[in-house]
Amino acid sequence: MSIVLREQGGAGSKDALPLSHEPSARGKVFLVGAGPGDAELITLKGLRCLRKADVVIYDRLIGPELLDEASSQAERVFVGKASGRHSIKQEEINALLIKYARQGRVVVRLKGGDPFVFGRGGEEALALAQAGIPFEVVPGISSAIAVPAYAGIPVTQRGLASSVTIVTGHEQTSCGSYDVNWEALAMVGGTLVILMGVETLPEITQRLLNAGLHPDTPAAVIQQGTVPQQRMVADTLVSIAERARAAKIASPAVTVIGAVVALSDLLTWFETLTPQLAGC
Amino acid sequence: MSIVLREQGGAGSKDALPLSHEPSARGKVFLVGAGPGDAELITLKGLRCLRKADVVIYDRLIGPELLDEASSQAERVFVGKASGRHSIKQEEINALLIKYARQGRVVVRLKGGDPFVFGRGGEEALALAQAGIPFEVVPGISSAIAVPAYAGIPVTQRGLASSVTIVTGHEQTSCGSYDVNWEALAMVGGTLVILMGVETLPEITQRLLNAGLHPDTPAAVIQQGTVPQQRMVADTLVSIAERARAAKIASPAVTVIGAVVALSDLLTWFETLTPQLAGC
Repeated sequence: MSIVLREQGGAGSKDALPLSHEPSARGKVFLVGAGPGDAELITLKGLRCLRKADVVIYDRLIGPELLDEASSQAERVFVGKASGRHSIKQEEINALLIKYARQGRVVVRLKGGDPFVFGRGGEEALALAQAGIPFEVVPGISSAIAVPAYAGIPVTQRGLASSVTIVTGHEQTSCGSYDVNWEALAMVGGTLVILMGVETLPEITQRLLNAGLHPDTPAAVIQQGTVPQQRMVADTLVSIAERARAAKIASPAVTVIGAVVALSDLLTWFETLTPQLAGC
Repeated sequence: MSIVLREQGGAGSKDALPLSHEPSARGKVFLVGAGPGDAELITLKGLRCLRKADVVIYDRLIGPELLDEASSQAERVFVGKASGRHSIKQEEINALLIKYARQGRVVVRLKGGDPFVFGRGGEEALALAQAGIPFEVVPGISSAIAVPAYAGIPVTQRGLASSVTIVTGHEQTSCGSYDVNWEALAMVGGTLVILMGVETLPEITQRLLNAGLHPDTPAAVIQQGTVPQQRMVADTLVSIAERARAAKIASPAVTVIGAVVALSDLLTWFETLTPQLAGC
């Protein structure tokens, strides 16, 4: 088996690994993870789907490098949150996917990170299944693991972290409900990675402290991880929220809490590649 | 910026995204995640590194499709566990990485999944940092997320799972110590993904039950996920260990516990692509 990358361009070539659809013979949706920011962290399969797409339905944070890989004939539909207005509702996105697939088109739903790690890909897959639309899932590199890695933080490490839990801080504000059991998470003892939680960090850290997580537990917040603008602040659990606020850390940001954060001092590698990076 | 895949072959071409090393000018190690099995789930960056490598140091479960992508001149060093003998110790692998890099060579350390998710990449990075060897981390698609995805299980889902915890079941047997706080994990209430835990599944499920996790919690074990040999058994928490034993599920296998497992009935997609697959 030869990997598709040997080819000159992807679209239209015949000896690629067989994708399990015949383009335009029948509509199909590919839920594709674009990865965490660095465009080269998309998978071969994701890129191949993107090049074959008739329609690309994409979110905020999808870079132009990736969108340019789609065919010039492909329809590009932005469904992310534009500044100053609300994002399209999930139900509307589901309806779009179904509409285009029913037109017999190959649809790529391109999402930051991984479709199934707080990407609402499961909801889209359910809508497609219920509508009888065939789909495939193409996993992507999750920010939850790759952003810490680019900051020199392994989310697991023998003797330091035998588990990693990924949560979203977003739940806290969106509907007022506290779905995440922060108190139990404080007792697990592994690494905690919080996506989309920079606005709610004061509240989240307070709940973890109240639940008994040690105030000196190392913590870091990484903004725009895996791209040249990446920057990080690190401190203790008790101080990280104020530190992030003072440094004006803004979304997209990933928070990491746990002993492994202390390794970043030794394992920093991405910031040192490009001297202009502002490692904090 | 053009993505490297447009090129005819990767090695030696000049207009790729700049890798931050000059090949062979100075030794450097790339800790590269190969992904979960499906060879096309490697990232563009990972493949580009592999094609530039002078030395590839690889584990068990790395497929020949990927190894064939390295240059014919590249030295290939297997450091996985061969049947009938013990694997090379981690310290020896660390020493190999340092030795080859000090020869001025570009070394790719190719690991299944992601280097930092129970891949011991953090230990290798530490050894390299302490030896003054430059390194980069190239994240890979983790089995913990992609194997459930290929089985139709989104590890997070609004209303069903607001967190996902990844642990290894291996700790249980390797040294007798119980690093994982299964009791706290039982209270978190999100999705639990257990890597390398098929042998210890009876013990793990018993501890979760003892800690109060509901016996009817959906659970699944997926063997050889993301490749055509993928097969899955699903049952309740109280019955999954016996079900997996009866089905002779063997490693490599990923266990998923939580409400999201029930979605696999609706979201199965990979098994239906190739009818010969034995979806259980």
